Amino acid sequence: METMTAIIRRYQHQRVTLVEAGATRHQSIFSGLKALAGDHPHSKLPTPTVVIIHDAVRPFVEEDVLVRVVTAAKDHGAAGAIRPLVSTVISPSTDGYLEQSLDRAKHRASEMPQAFLFDVIYRAYCQCSDHDMEFGTECLHLALKYCHTKAKLVEGPPDLWKVTYRRDLYAMESIIKDKISQQICVVMDTEEEAGCLGFLQGLLQKELEVKGTSVALCPNGQGLQNVSLGECYNFVCINTMNADFHQTVKLLDGLGSRAPSLFYPVTVVSVHFLDSQNVLFSERMKALMEMKDFAKEVKNRNVFLYGVLIYFTQDNLQQLQENVRQGASIITSLIKDRSAGLTGQLLIA
Amino acid sequence: METMTAIIRRYQHQRVTLVEAGATRHQSIFSGLKALAGDHPHSKLPTPTVVIIHDAVRPFVEEDVLVRVVTAAKDHGAAGAIRPLVSTVISPSTDGYLEQSLDRAKHRASEMPQAFLFDVIYRAYCQCSDHDMEFGTECLHLALKYCHTKAKLVEGPPDLWKVTYRRDLYAMESIIKDKISQQICVVMDTEEEAGCLGFLQGLLQKELEVKGTSVALCPNGQGLQNVSLGECYNFVCINTMNADFHQTVKLLDGLGSRAPSLFYPVTVVSVHFLDSQNVLFSERMKALMEMKDFAKEVKNRNVFLYGVLIYFTQDNLQQLQENVRQGASIITSLIKDRSAGLTGQLLIA
Repeated sequence: METMTAIIRRYQHQRVTLVEAGATRHQSIFSGLKALAGDHPHSKLPTPTVVIIHDAVRPFVEEDVLVRVVTAAKDHGAAGAIRPLVSTVISPSTDGYLEQSLDRAKHRASEMPQAFLFDVIYRAYCQCSDHDMEFGTECLHLALKYCHTKAKLVEGPPDLWKVTYRRDLYAMESIIKDKISQQICVVMDTEEEAGCLGFLQGLLQKELEVKGTSVALCPNGQGLQNVSLGECYNFVCINTMNADFHQTVKLLDGLGSRAPSLFYPVTVVSVHFLDSQNVLFSERMKALMEMKDFAKEVKNRNVFLYGVLIYFTQDNLQQLQENVRQGASIITSLIKDRSAGLTGQLLIA
Repeated sequence: METMTAIIRRYQHQRVTLVEAGATRHQSIFSGLKALAGDHPHSKLPTPTVVIIHDAVRPFVEEDVLVRVVTAAKDHGAAGAIRPLVSTVISPSTDGYLEQSLDRAKHRASEMPQAFLFDVIYRAYCQCSDHDMEFGTECLHLALKYCHTKAKLVEGPPDLWKVTYRRDLYAMESIIKDKISQQICVVMDTEEEAGCLGFLQGLLQKELEVKGTSVALCPNGQGLQNVSLGECYNFVCINTMNADFHQTVKLLDGLGSRAPSLFYPVTVVSVHFLDSQNVLFSERMKALMEMKDFAKEVKNRNVFLYGVLIYFTQDNLQQLQENVRQGASIITSLIKDRSAGLTGQLLIA
């Protein structure tokens, strides 16, 4: 209860009431239903027409499927998401031999979310046997058995799967990384746009877009407020020729109070175009040290900062294009991997 | 057939015979069985006592479970791997309502591998109806239906799951990366061991081991042959103070003809300890350029090369330890992520 209370406070949820769980799935669900029936000791909750039951281990539930089960529940009393079976289901004998094999085409996996007319599912739980309460796993079954309500079955998307094994955690992490890598916001200084730098910016933007991500432009950080409020987790910040961080610092300040970084790390790539002639090593090291210090500081706010240096010589256009292409490839790698261990690094294209 | 022939040639498999597949699962399996019954036009294969049937979409099958199903098949005529059900299985009516919900505790998912006495499964397929051949999904069912052989069910590990959706590909990739990141081989120059560098090497080794990976030492590349022949996909190569690549080049040459890189990319991290005083930028850039060129070259052999520079000043022990710690953290990030886009980069601790 403490952990959940802390989570609710942290993410500022307003419409959540916690109810203590039971020892089994059905006992826990019944506790929730009782609270909605007006049985909760601390708060008087209104009793809903339709109630949704969902598993926390199915984190990728979209509004669309919720709407479909709720609508179906309203019409038919009960509804649940289903998926095709991936493996054949069999029933074993008590001594471990094949007893019967079920026709895969005639069966489905019952998934969540499920929705019920409150009255139906509450009556079902009130009549539920001790055996059902202890060993049962299926709410649709209770509605059928105790209220003779045949649930309407709704085809759900594959992402509704139940995160069960270690491999499911891996899959979940990759799905999230995939999802938050689709949009990149490029912030740049337009004062330089007329010259060579403008050309480089254009080139870089084109390379990033080719990789299948949507790229939004924020000249001088304008429009950043709109992007920030959205779902963008990736910022590429182009700084001027000298190795300063002016634009990046401004961006990091702007990101300071953003909500998204609460959920997932926000990636900021500070890009520096540098003339490869006559740059001293000491200067380069100083820039790197600043980058590392910055990176350490913003990591506390769940922002991962990386640097990318794109070298160019004014007289070699082909080399420059190749370097920009490499820079884009490095940037997309950084955004895709979101490696905590590589924050503060200055990579060179 | 061409693709499979190319794969067999590439990985030098000696005991594989290809048989053309059918339009359905059962037709394909029957083709394979016919070939083993001596029906194959090109080669006369010996008919086995026991035959194993497996899905290519379950790549993580271990010898242990194969032995168990084969042994059980020898004793009982048929055997197959099973797993507990993750979701409840239901049967829908034709108009999409819940008809019946199965008791999850009394059912299992039937997985692969399965094994059979050749005689049992071949007879079953010979008698198989057209309907079974077209719509059936379960070999154990055929052995039961046509030969009255009740398969022995063997509990399989979770990694036997069927790679079906995009998320399963993600999971698969992470499982492989996890598996090949467990062992790191550190190659170093022992001539320097007496001095400060020896101390640094020891420190680095300790840091890497802490991360839960096993670390093998190869002074001067000795014993590398043993490691190479094993399952090691990660090499950390420590070079001497000046920024040359002597040790790394020797290692890369040694890896030239290794088999593992055929399957998965081999990671080589070239570590350079560098005194932070008086190193010129131009020298640094030269080293980086060499690293990039090397990386490009060895990438063709499926070797990912990265550089890590660990700075130290002789008089600041605390700073040095911190930098070595950071170096270890960067190295483990590189090995864990195996990013193709970051090869050739020189990262700085």
